[in-house]
Amino acid sequence: MTTAADRLGAWLQGFGAALERGRASEAAACFEEDGHWRDLVSFTWNIATMAGREAITSMLEACLGDTVPSNWQLDGEPTEVDGLVEGWLTFETALGRGRGYVRLRDGRCWTLLTTLQELKGFEEQQGFTRPLGVELGAIKGRVTWQERRRREAAALGFERQPYVVIVGGGQGGIGLGARLKRLGVPAIIVERNARPGDSWRNRYESLTLHDTVWFDHMPYIPFPPHWPVYTPKDQMGDWLEAYTKLMELDYWGGTECRIARYDEDAGEWEVTVERDGSTVVLRPKQLVLATGMSGLPQIPDIPGVEGFEGDLYHSSRYRSGEAYGGKHCIVLGSNNSAHDVCQDLWEHDADVTMIQRSSTTVVRGGRGGVGNYSEAAVARGIDTDTADLLAASMPFALAPAGAIEATKRLRAADADFYARLEASGFLLDFGEDETGIGMKYQRRGSGYYIDVGASELIISGEIKLHTRVSIERIQPRSVVLTDGTELPADLIVFATGFGSMNGWAAQLISQEVADRVGKVWGLGSGTAYDPGPWKGELRNMWKPTRQPGLWFHGGNLAQSRHYSRYVALQLKARLEGLPTTVYGLSEVHHLR
Amino acid sequence: MTTAADRLGAWLQGFGAALERGRASEAAACFEEDGHWRDLVSFTWNIATMAGREAITSMLEACLGDTVPSNWQLDGEPTEVDGLVEGWLTFETALGRGRGYVRLRDGRCWTLLTTLQELKGFEEQQGFTRPLGVELGAIKGRVTWQERRRREAAALGFERQPYVVIVGGGQGGIGLGARLKRLGVPAIIVERNARPGDSWRNRYESLTLHDTVWFDHMPYIPFPPHWPVYTPKDQMGDWLEAYTKLMELDYWGGTECRIARYDEDAGEWEVTVERDGSTVVLRPKQLVLATGMSGLPQIPDIPGVEGFEGDLYHSSRYRSGEAYGGKHCIVLGSNNSAHDVCQDLWEHDADVTMIQRSSTTVVRGGRGGVGNYSEAAVARGIDTDTADLLAASMPFALAPAGAIEATKRLRAADADFYARLEASGFLLDFGEDETGIGMKYQRRGSGYYIDVGASELIISGEIKLHTRVSIERIQPRSVVLTDGTELPADLIVFATGFGSMNGWAAQLISQEVADRVGKVWGLGSGTAYDPGPWKGELRNMWKPTRQPGLWFHGGNLAQSRHYSRYVALQLKARLEGLPTTVYGLSEVHHLR
Repeated sequence: MTTAADRLGAWLQGFGAALERGRASEAAACFEEDGHWRDLVSFTWNIATMAGREAITSMLEACLGDTVPSNWQLDGEPTEVDGLVEGWLTFETALGRGRGYVRLRDGRCWTLLTTLQELKGFEEQQGFTRPLGVELGAIKGRVTWQERRRREAAALGFERQPYVVIVGGGQGGIGLGARLKRLGVPAIIVERNARPGDSWRNRYESLTLHDTVWFDHMPYIPFPPHWPVYTPKDQMGDWLEAYTKLMELDYWGGTECRIARYDEDAGEWEVTVERDGSTVVLRPKQLVLATGMSGLPQIPDIPGVEGFEGDLYHSSRYRSGEAYGGKHCIVLGSNNSAHDVCQDLWEHDADVTMIQRSSTTVVRGGRGGVGNYSEAAVARGIDTDTADLLAASMPFALAPAGAIEATKRLRAADADFYARLEASGFLLDFGEDETGIGMKYQRRGSGYYIDVGASELIISGEIKLHTRVSIERIQPRSVVLTDGTELPADLIVFATGFGSMNGWAAQLISQEVADRVGKVWGLGSGTAYDPGPWKGELRNMWKPTRQPGLWFHGGNLAQSRHYSRYVALQLKARLEGLPTTVYGLSEVHHLR
Repeated sequence: MTTAADRLGAWLQGFGAALERGRASEAAACFEEDGHWRDLVSFTWNIATMAGREAITSMLEACLGDTVPSNWQLDGEPTEVDGLVEGWLTFETALGRGRGYVRLRDGRCWTLLTTLQELKGFEEQQGFTRPLGVELGAIKGRVTWQERRRREAAALGFERQPYVVIVGGGQGGIGLGARLKRLGVPAIIVERNARPGDSWRNRYESLTLHDTVWFDHMPYIPFPPHWPVYTPKDQMGDWLEAYTKLMELDYWGGTECRIARYDEDAGEWEVTVERDGSTVVLRPKQLVLATGMSGLPQIPDIPGVEGFEGDLYHSSRYRSGEAYGGKHCIVLGSNNSAHDVCQDLWEHDADVTMIQRSSTTVVRGGRGGVGNYSEAAVARGIDTDTADLLAASMPFALAPAGAIEATKRLRAADADFYARLEASGFLLDFGEDETGIGMKYQRRGSGYYIDVGASELIISGEIKLHTRVSIERIQPRSVVLTDGTELPADLIVFATGFGSMNGWAAQLISQEVADRVGKVWGLGSGTAYDPGPWKGELRNMWKPTRQPGLWFHGGNLAQSRHYSRYVALQLKARLEGLPTTVYGLSEVHHLR
């Protein structure tokens, strides 16, 4: 009787041998006819999913010559459940070492993930190879750690140009900055706010992270075991500030990025920033926009805004309901921010009305932590890297099936809650194809609420609700809805979301460059706000774009953590002049 | 054939049964005639080693009634090498849960370690029980994490008295503060320097930790895997500052402790501190001196000090050799600080002379990390807690045998180095009984140098050396040695060590209280600076003293980390009013 290890081993031997002999179609034949191969930078120098033998063959024909994959090995013990054999593997390429995950059915590959983990000769110093920290022996003119660090920080951007400038110093920019620091890639993080963590501190008072601690670790320094499940925003601010210091990042706080221009001839950027009241021009080869997964705040164009006598602003500027006790507050929108703002206003005794224009996916927050991001997973020995790779191992095209099942279970478990919420008049959906919150996040990054209290307020009528309407016009002390209803208003909050991230490129670089790279985020699922054609990967995220030297980094904390590894390796390879021929650079079908 | 697990299991069953039946001498008979039982707080509410069946019987007769030990279990797989069976165990007491380590020979116990790990009903919230971080549901008047923390910090010491005041905010005070915070014991750390970490930042520029990273982790937040083997002092300062913030400690920097007085009737301290220019009186029940393992700087009384025209200070005040290029520098002393100061001066082109009064133990620093505190141990799955318990499991009385063997190996391995050093005239020793550096540290906390470069400078004559002499008198521009030699001097550094920690008690409280608790540190080994009788444990460290409510905390980073757990549990138990009858409170034989 053969074991799962026997079968996976046999498959891997055949697959590895085909690759080593350069036989693209032979290797592709190791897959099911419509099998999937997802590659993170190891073969394609891109983030790409090849679906079907034909796509796999094409990729291999293009990439095998440079990649020279070898030394395929099983890693750990494969498992078999209901005929599905799955397990970890390791491999090498000409330039690096990789880790992968494979799923077999009937001896053929259903899904394969391959990832680049490190570049040969440029491994991070850690564990056995960590730095000594002291130069032993007597050395005239010894330079201390502090002095070396001080000089390095003072020179970077002036005597010495950074290879990378990261615009945006939230958790995305900070995590990527940490990876680059460990890889020895000179980088400056430019952030408008004064201190690391301010992007959290400056948000509304009651905010906590919406994802759980197991999902939200930064690279290198995980949260300790007593850290709360949902980190309060100011505590997150403190963590990021400490992290930035301890990772020795070159973080330019209080610095505004004015404009970035790409010099085609020099192959470098000219990035003009205002720092401490003076203008500094940085000349990096690579520019990373890490300005938030959300783009610029979107405010609908509603007549009467200029004449409004109360307070009016986008939800990103909302801080606290403290000033609004007893006041009439109108919140336009029905996603996370809208709910959180409504709840915070209610908690401060405001009179709150939510204007819900279209339906929303709601899931109940709770103790959280299920699956591979949970305390139970920690107890099973599933570390964060492993959880990240397992998450990455399922191609986006295959995600809906599982998401539909999960949504069904959720609807059944919380049937009473959903019934009560719908009875209140709230417009509820579970995604166009019933795939729920996770797919909405990947497709459009919006359209959902993780309930931490506002839904019961809507159910009980404590938060008033108007649905299937918007604000038609604004009067000095009221709003008029599209159904003619007039509501008194002392405060109007536009919880109306954000544009595509390439809005930042338009603002910082040019509309031309923004249009060249096109829409950022979304899979091309053909659902609302995510028009097709199908891409198979998130548009423009963490991978080369059609603008040389321009990268987008971000996502939630888990994505930022995981994909920062691949952004950093791509940048490091370019710094070192390694060949990085990109396979399958995505076409642009949508501009925003 | 019985396995190690069988044999240890059988022993544990007999031992546990004797304890559960309250049979002290029957339990003691499970030990070898001169077997050792080391207890950290679980039976004795003390840190005590019982040597021999008689001592063990006495302890059990006193403690069994309150302790009510039960549920003894093997933990993990015991090992057997050359007839020595050893392994981990767990147990419960009336009040807590414990972990232990046992070594058997021929079916009887040679050494047993028992430790209290947590108090029932007062377990730390972590992992599965970590706090949620958010209050779900709609709550009027919600108080945010930041606001709650701000109020708590503002009230402590004013509207609400801390249960504990820790004097000294170095790594010892900070680590203990973190344990107390996690246990919900209100504590204020009082520190003269402005910021956490300043106790490291303010030392000489070239300083790095002398112990390795594997040895030096703080509780709860370990150093990340890229952290250097030897942490530079300013980097350590940054770590401690971030740590203090992230652990939410009530740290009163820039605060001088003026005087502490014990009010017998109230059973509390009156601790007067100067904070931001105003006087605050704190009234804690418990006072912990964590003012450094070293006591007050010792400066010998040498005629002519007042007339000296150059710079003259204790090594603890030395910062850098920068100002001393080409100057005549005299360093009195030959231990770690003396060597480091000499090397730093030489690196700044000073003319350096070391005055060695008596012999010194020297070991060569290097990549370090051997045994259970090393990267290899990490790879074997030995975490820091496990390494700490293994270190604690060998009673002090049994340490010399191993230390003598280790010293032999070291002398053989570095024979050439030692020969060259002795040829230079340097007075070398390996401890009175050839037990080397480790025992010197435990016995007297001085008398050694971990070589990071100065020894070769002494060998080559770059650092000049005068031995078996001291400074007889100081003249305006020179020193005269006890052999009549006169040496020109622009700088004199007294690297002459520190007094016993109870010197701090004399300074902060009274000489009477200092004398009541007696000498701090040392085992009573009867060797230099550690007069007998034998104590079996470090005097007054981490355990109750003869002054009610007065505790000493400190040691190197590993000791501070490990023993802070037991100090914190002792304090928590008292806060909660649990019965904590102390067994074997130590006699005072020496005052300093």
